[in-house]
Amino acid sequence: MTAIHIPDGSPFGLANLPYGIFSTAGTAPRAGVRAGDSVVDLAVALGDEVFARPSLNAFMAQGYERWVEVRARITDLVRGDVPDEAVHPIGAVTMHMPIEVADYVDFYASEHHASNLGRLFRPDDEPLKPNWKHLPVGYHGRAGTVVLSGTEIVRPYGQRKAPAEAAPTFGACRRLDIEAELGFIVGAGSALGSPVSCDDFARHVFGAVLVNDWSARDIQAWEYVPLGPFLGKSFATSISAWVVPLLALDAARVPTPVQDPEPLPYLREQTPWGLDVDLTVEWNGQAVSHPPYREMYWSPAQMLAHMTVNGASARTGDLYASGTISGPEPHQRGAFIELTWGGKEPVTVNGEERSFLEDGDEVAITATAPGAGGTRIGFGEVRGRVVGRTTP
Amino acid sequence: MTAIHIPDGSPFGLANLPYGIFSTAGTAPRAGVRAGDSVVDLAVALGDEVFARPSLNAFMAQGYERWVEVRARITDLVRGDVPDEAVHPIGAVTMHMPIEVADYVDFYASEHHASNLGRLFRPDDEPLKPNWKHLPVGYHGRAGTVVLSGTEIVRPYGQRKAPAEAAPTFGACRRLDIEAELGFIVGAGSALGSPVSCDDFARHVFGAVLVNDWSARDIQAWEYVPLGPFLGKSFATSISAWVVPLLALDAARVPTPVQDPEPLPYLREQTPWGLDVDLTVEWNGQAVSHPPYREMYWSPAQMLAHMTVNGASARTGDLYASGTISGPEPHQRGAFIELTWGGKEPVTVNGEERSFLEDGDEVAITATAPGAGGTRIGFGEVRGRVVGRTTP
Repeated sequence: MTAIHIPDGSPFGLANLPYGIFSTAGTAPRAGVRAGDSVVDLAVALGDEVFARPSLNAFMAQGYERWVEVRARITDLVRGDVPDEAVHPIGAVTMHMPIEVADYVDFYASEHHASNLGRLFRPDDEPLKPNWKHLPVGYHGRAGTVVLSGTEIVRPYGQRKAPAEAAPTFGACRRLDIEAELGFIVGAGSALGSPVSCDDFARHVFGAVLVNDWSARDIQAWEYVPLGPFLGKSFATSISAWVVPLLALDAARVPTPVQDPEPLPYLREQTPWGLDVDLTVEWNGQAVSHPPYREMYWSPAQMLAHMTVNGASARTGDLYASGTISGPEPHQRGAFIELTWGGKEPVTVNGEERSFLEDGDEVAITATAPGAGGTRIGFGEVRGRVVGRTTP
Repeated sequence: MTAIHIPDGSPFGLANLPYGIFSTAGTAPRAGVRAGDSVVDLAVALGDEVFARPSLNAFMAQGYERWVEVRARITDLVRGDVPDEAVHPIGAVTMHMPIEVADYVDFYASEHHASNLGRLFRPDDEPLKPNWKHLPVGYHGRAGTVVLSGTEIVRPYGQRKAPAEAAPTFGACRRLDIEAELGFIVGAGSALGSPVSCDDFARHVFGAVLVNDWSARDIQAWEYVPLGPFLGKSFATSISAWVVPLLALDAARVPTPVQDPEPLPYLREQTPWGLDVDLTVEWNGQAVSHPPYREMYWSPAQMLAHMTVNGASARTGDLYASGTISGPEPHQRGAFIELTWGGKEPVTVNGEERSFLEDGDEVAITATAPGAGGTRIGFGEVRGRVVGRTTP
């Protein structure tokens, strides 16, 4: 038996215990929990085959009571002794996609981001559309191109047309961007025709991950009217490897900013689901932005209530992301198009001027939040490096 | 052994042989081929376990050469004798979803439909946006709410705001509509970062189904700017039970309408993939429209090339639909919002005036196309009845 040592101040202490899918040399991917700098093999430690599978979906589908029970058992285990063969140092494991993504939806829940993008994409119009403060605007994205942190991002190609150009041209994206977001994973689904209320959020959502919704701004600007973003977003969406349980985020709950006008009844929360999560965006190792999730206008409970209010079902493995997290200050913007104001105000990264991403650039997004007992818990990171495409 | 009798003029003759998933009383769903009024159990007839599964995905993933080989074997089998235990009368089987849907994309490829909807949704603007003739406009839909023909359609609820109203209200959809479409199913996927050319269409797309993309026009009109349709479309999308192999559609191939301006090179086809498919829309049993697929501006090969040109991968089970099929004539419109011009010109259905769908209304879409040897092949039907929601 092994006592797991958790270093003081570790973002992966007992208040966190995030889930992921890992393998060690020559073994199959399976579920683990991170504790300090160790990964606990759950199939071995708990003797339960549901954790021997290559995604968390089967476990998540078991529902809320089971999530509570397993978390309590893991907490006891990590506090005490764990069988030797169930413990692996973090440096000896390879991480895999934690979930099989069912549907992927991206929201647009930051008032600052939506206003900034409105100004940049539609300079002659009101930045916020009339619907924006009445409902969490969102759209479906491509589930098949959600990839694990660390996956190389192949620069997309496509049609671009600047306003001054007469016709579109085809070629490599010239305005490749990021969007720093939080993603929420549905563990327990819902039936077709039965909406999920805001109050039932925690019974359906299993946990949260970091999301980088890579965006080709030139492709997006030309294609997105009238049916929304498509190829400008569908080439890759990266998520972090560790799923922070919603149960670990209780200490991070805060009210959303004041919502005025008051939302329709189905969007009203009895208890707040704003989240006090601090993100950091690093561009080639240099921190360039600190987006504050607490500034998000719509909460993830409101997003789920809205997504299902028409009767749409939710499934185990559904991933919905918040949309870019941007605060009111320039250094809190979660997309480079905002941070550099459409490329007109480049930032200096390690002495070089950057507006959008160049081949070889690497972006890492990290985050922490208050955890139980005055601790801070970590989301790990979502990281990706841009590479050029070999076949145009 | 049984010789399968195929009635003269059957839309399910040797030129068609569509695939589906069926069960008989007390048995598990498995793959079958329809021949006349019989269903051939493929696992039994061919002795291959890949057909014993509850979706076509595993077979489709085996790729083009295998699709050709299996079709040839089934043709031989149906021409000769089939083991008794492999043949079921169509009346004795229950159909199931033919595929596990991976990603669902909806295009907007009819110039007549896009122009009509532009006039109806944006009366003060040009009906076609500047990008429309340069690329097949499309967006991602909700894969988890793609349902089998026959599934009841629960009337969606949501936010609606008429232009004259000061604020949105919440309630049942008042403008529930259909969209008559063809859907294309990806059998063999593609790698991330590797576009599929128009010429490789038939190596990736396994077959076609009928699609009814149910649409809540009031919800859609209020929500869709700027990120596109979301809840107005995500409550249900129905597909037909029989997947017509692309190999059966060779005789239906026709050029698309003239594309002017000439598309960019990645959207140019060496051989045409327009399809001469005739649809019929029945409202409570009365034929109200005859949408002609041959009028579609963009071909399904161009749609797939566009969908992957940015480097997005395609997966086995991806479903992409054409968008509403509308011809130039009023009686060829594939959505009721067009057919009744926004509800202003109701149609008479069995003596009653109808603009949009009422609870209890049933819609069935059928289609036929030229098959090999001067035959006509059928797509079966996609059918759905609207029911009110019990819990608002």
